[in-house]
Amino acid sequence: MKGLMHLYTGDGKGKTTAAVGLTIRAIGNGLRVLFIQFIKEEFSGEIVILNNYPTLVDVYRCSTGFIYNEGKSLQREKIKRCLEELKLKIKKDTYDMIVFDELAIAISLGLIFRDETEELLSLINKDTEIIITGRNAPQWLIERADLVTEMKNIKHYFEKGVNARKGIEY
Amino acid sequence: MKGLMHLYTGDGKGKTTAAVGLTIRAIGNGLRVLFIQFIKEEFSGEIVILNNYPTLVDVYRCSTGFIYNEGKSLQREKIKRCLEELKLKIKKDTYDMIVFDELAIAISLGLIFRDETEELLSLINKDTEIIITGRNAPQWLIERADLVTEMKNIKHYFEKGVNARKGIEY
Repeated sequence: MKGLMHLYTGDGKGKTTAAVGLTIRAIGNGLRVLFIQFIKEEFSGEIVILNNYPTLVDVYRCSTGFIYNEGKSLQREKIKRCLEELKLKIKKDTYDMIVFDELAIAISLGLIFRDETEELLSLINKDTEIIITGRNAPQWLIERADLVTEMKNIKHYFEKGVNARKGIEY
Repeated sequence: MKGLMHLYTGDGKGKTTAAVGLTIRAIGNGLRVLFIQFIKEEFSGEIVILNNYPTLVDVYRCSTGFIYNEGKSLQREKIKRCLEELKLKIKKDTYDMIVFDELAIAISLGLIFRDETEELLSLINKDTEIIITGRNAPQWLIERADLVTEMKNIKHYFEKGVNARKGIEY
């Protein structure tokens, strides 16, 4: 069966958690998932659980952190190394689902280029379901995806001064 | 710390999976979660994984199925029994997070009334994070929530005739 591409974008909460939920549903059906996380560098509780299923989930983090001008070239170097490793990984192994968490934001920040993304996607088996998350997805990615959900922020408690909380945001 | 209420609504894919992802993040931090699922009656892979953590996740399914005119009074009877059981459960035990998956759609279908919902919510410990999902959330629930994300369908492969697939939709 042909794998389809999902894109979860927008400024609302729920993009990474939806990708985690899809991963959990997939492994609950015995599917194998490569869960790639860009940008984020902090501990996050979901990774603990995903790591409990090493035969079903392969977690790969490319933790550059968010971008500040002074660090951008270093972060770009790190991303380039990650992409080389990911190419080898994708060529070597077969997955039923590949999640690219925060890929859209990495593209919109100029950390990953369109041609690099397309090269990476072209290496993926045609049966593999592809899940991409991140705000500010570029138009070409929206056009390419088979499913796009915009997670639209209607209201958020961050706007009322609540900070990120362990167990909820990470 | 005061628990907050999240509402994930809208017609796009990603609501239940976001609730599952939040549950997984919470239990990865050692939090205890009551995961309540209304309506859905089919097998779904995520439940298999949630059931692997019986000391952290309590799964309660109130599987009425979707509503057709001929079955509505039976389904309403079933929901009433579920609500009584849930009241006892919530009074008896303490959870860090309670997920009400598909509650909003159950309300919009007339299967659960506003006063019943408010009674149930009033029994929950003030420190507990509350997660509600489901399309067609009523305005009073949107107003009451601290965080609302609208999962907006931009495009969906169902519109192209793709059927629900094991491992992806369930």
